[in-house]
Amino acid sequence: MIKNEAITRSGDDFAQWYTDVVKKAELADYSDVRGCIVFRPYGYAIWELIQKAYDKRFKETGHENVYMPMFIPENLLQKESEHVEGFAPEVAWVTHGGAEQLAERLAIRPTSETLFCEHYKKIIQSHRDLPKLYNQWCSVVRWEKTTRPFLRTSEFLWQEGHTAHATEAEAREETLRILDIYAEVAAEVLAIPTIKGRKSDKEKFAGAQETYSIESVMRDGKALQSGTTHYFGNNFSKAFDITFTNKDNKLEYVYQTSWGLSTRLIGALIMIHGDDNGLRLPPGVAPTEVMIIPIASHKPGVMEKAAEIKNILSERRVKIDDSDKSPGWKFSEAEVKGIPIRLEIGPKDIEKNQALLVRRDTGERISAPLDNIKTIVNQTLDKIQSDMYESAKQNLYGTISEARDLKEMEYNLIHKPGFIKGMWCGSRDCEDKVKELFSATSRNMPLGETAIGGTCVCCGRPADKLVYWGKAY
Amino acid sequence: MIKNEAITRSGDDFAQWYTDVVKKAELADYSDVRGCIVFRPYGYAIWELIQKAYDKRFKETGHENVYMPMFIPENLLQKESEHVEGFAPEVAWVTHGGAEQLAERLAIRPTSETLFCEHYKKIIQSHRDLPKLYNQWCSVVRWEKTTRPFLRTSEFLWQEGHTAHATEAEAREETLRILDIYAEVAAEVLAIPTIKGRKSDKEKFAGAQETYSIESVMRDGKALQSGTTHYFGNNFSKAFDITFTNKDNKLEYVYQTSWGLSTRLIGALIMIHGDDNGLRLPPGVAPTEVMIIPIASHKPGVMEKAAEIKNILSERRVKIDDSDKSPGWKFSEAEVKGIPIRLEIGPKDIEKNQALLVRRDTGERISAPLDNIKTIVNQTLDKIQSDMYESAKQNLYGTISEARDLKEMEYNLIHKPGFIKGMWCGSRDCEDKVKELFSATSRNMPLGETAIGGTCVCCGRPADKLVYWGKAY
Repeated sequence: MIKNEAITRSGDDFAQWYTDVVKKAELADYSDVRGCIVFRPYGYAIWELIQKAYDKRFKETGHENVYMPMFIPENLLQKESEHVEGFAPEVAWVTHGGAEQLAERLAIRPTSETLFCEHYKKIIQSHRDLPKLYNQWCSVVRWEKTTRPFLRTSEFLWQEGHTAHATEAEAREETLRILDIYAEVAAEVLAIPTIKGRKSDKEKFAGAQETYSIESVMRDGKALQSGTTHYFGNNFSKAFDITFTNKDNKLEYVYQTSWGLSTRLIGALIMIHGDDNGLRLPPGVAPTEVMIIPIASHKPGVMEKAAEIKNILSERRVKIDDSDKSPGWKFSEAEVKGIPIRLEIGPKDIEKNQALLVRRDTGERISAPLDNIKTIVNQTLDKIQSDMYESAKQNLYGTISEARDLKEMEYNLIHKPGFIKGMWCGSRDCEDKVKELFSATSRNMPLGETAIGGTCVCCGRPADKLVYWGKAY
Repeated sequence: MIKNEAITRSGDDFAQWYTDVVKKAELADYSDVRGCIVFRPYGYAIWELIQKAYDKRFKETGHENVYMPMFIPENLLQKESEHVEGFAPEVAWVTHGGAEQLAERLAIRPTSETLFCEHYKKIIQSHRDLPKLYNQWCSVVRWEKTTRPFLRTSEFLWQEGHTAHATEAEAREETLRILDIYAEVAAEVLAIPTIKGRKSDKEKFAGAQETYSIESVMRDGKALQSGTTHYFGNNFSKAFDITFTNKDNKLEYVYQTSWGLSTRLIGALIMIHGDDNGLRLPPGVAPTEVMIIPIASHKPGVMEKAAEIKNILSERRVKIDDSDKSPGWKFSEAEVKGIPIRLEIGPKDIEKNQALLVRRDTGERISAPLDNIKTIVNQTLDKIQSDMYESAKQNLYGTISEARDLKEMEYNLIHKPGFIKGMWCGSRDCEDKVKELFSATSRNMPLGETAIGGTCVCCGRPADKLVYWGKAY
């Protein structure tokens, strides 16, 4: 493939490459508002497909969508002490409505635990009202100093699930069920492999007893947290006094969870799948799965044949590029935008009753007989989806190294960028030290993996926690 | 049908009836934030179906979804003078991010013309870049003094379309195309008949050259504006300097439109279709189209048969109420929530190989042979959809009266609440006078209807504009 000249080589400057792809693929644009981006049609269409895939799974597992106000009165945000401490520094405050100064400042939601708690307090009385399995799709605001499209912006789009349960066991089960859904959809639809694990206390959510995450590694070796689920126990229900009458007619506090994933996932798609020619999208989240490009479109029969093929493929997301640009320009555009398949059809192809199918992920060119085009396209899209996942998985596991002490960790961080498996004694001091020395953090403690030794990578004392360490976005 | 005791009779107190239905059908709840409501699962599910129906039509007509920031810097909001004048009094202002005071206040979008204009200025250069047909689904904030769920709240959910075109003709065509879509989906999916027409200059959108609306009449005779489309001409493109090179290589200003409809439509659904037993939903926007209610569910075979029927009907939105409440309680709940069909199935029904189908809209009870249940349910849902529309249409047209002078208008406003057709000379004074005297406003000037006389209903001077007048929400 010819290098797209407008895109910086990722090997030269990964950050600039990322920005170039965001711009050239027309995913997003900067806005006049500090730290806020414009989601352009192509970027937003990807988000709609991500939403659709997750929303389906949430609904299948009994969750219902709601919508809470975007404002949180200051006193409400302050009810749970750890929570307010965690979010206060990055809250945007509304102080005036029209010309009138408000009696109480309103936070624009950085997350909505407090609003859900107020609502749950009202609507939950008995064990019959439980569980409550609510989710909302919305935008939230966290006033950030430095921002990058999709990865860190002052306003971003996400979903936040908030659930209330009658027992600790149910709430814990929910926390892990959603973690599984996060990982499964990431794998199956976004072709993104992730590591599921528990966060350290230092890295957990403000107000949670336990936080779990899915983490993946980008092509530059840096980790990206792509979704988190939180087990709250009674922390919030005690602060907000959310009680219910249990089956024995006794008053109990509910057990709660929350969980969220955001438009960061678009950043992950770019940085995991993209190459020096632009985006590469797995069919699962490709707004256009197949782009038909007519060659010599002025010749008789070409546009008709293109339309005929589009019609045959109508169950997929398929388009014809009928603009007056040159075929080469169209190829390049389809490439930058990461469209999984382009189908070239010109007079010579029509003569042979075939089209030229080009895979974006591999560049492979296949002569596809038109009599069989539907089957070939469907099979190829399936193949691209699974190949891209397998390839991303190999990349991910290829970045994983092991370290037994700080020296080894330092070496790996320089020479094998990615996840570093290392044991941890559990002390905050060791975590702080690793961060101070290497700007690396404990990403998570993977579920179901076995120890790789008995001593802490940092202090050398006995350690029973296996941790994935890494530099992160 | 037995009157649901928890709901105020609409004839006694329509406003209280409305609030009762919102609460009892679990559509929304009040929140601790002034003027903001919580969309509960059932209310939000209706909104999702409304979104889906409109979004499909928007996409079919070439529109693309985007997402703009929720913030508008103060100087940006002020660029178009009429626009800022119209919205400034109801804007919520963000003044602080974290502990830091912002250099410039940020408005929370009351509508996003200004943001779309800034973006269009950047991305439009040539006639090849036109048209731009963008839409976004989001929440907006207008700081309101008095609020009612769905009808008027400080934050509400809506879609806002913003388009840019190369010619006046195209932009005008878009303005009316969307008006048609608004009316068609309202009629076909929400079973809501509307009057399409043009707004007077007094009632038009701040910054528009022309505003069109769809208007309907609620069961209390008051009108509800249910969607508006605006033709801007070059008003905004001149203020924001949005130009393009036309086919003759000359620089021109783009022609723009915008259009929006909101969660007010849920208010319209309630007030047009609801009755003293609660909501009545047309199948098109019913989160549950069929509720199966097992009778004597402990008897052998009942739950199995219910599950079997659910399975047969799986192409529809169907549920089984398997809670431990009494059948009577379940009937009442299905009624309050306006579920179009309830299917009762008990041991005696099973013996006769039938189910009892009860229509929510008419109360009609039909013995439905199980061998044929799918066809009967599908046909009945279609029938309910069309019957509800026809009935609403008869109600709407039944409220329309004519007035030739102020006396007649006054009489009709008292004795025939609804739309009053009357001629208008076009002067603002007459509009103001009608409002002052009767609290009635010109709703719109209907498209394609003929004059009903030659003199103004207010001043008696020659008049060529037919107006639908009415009291409005």
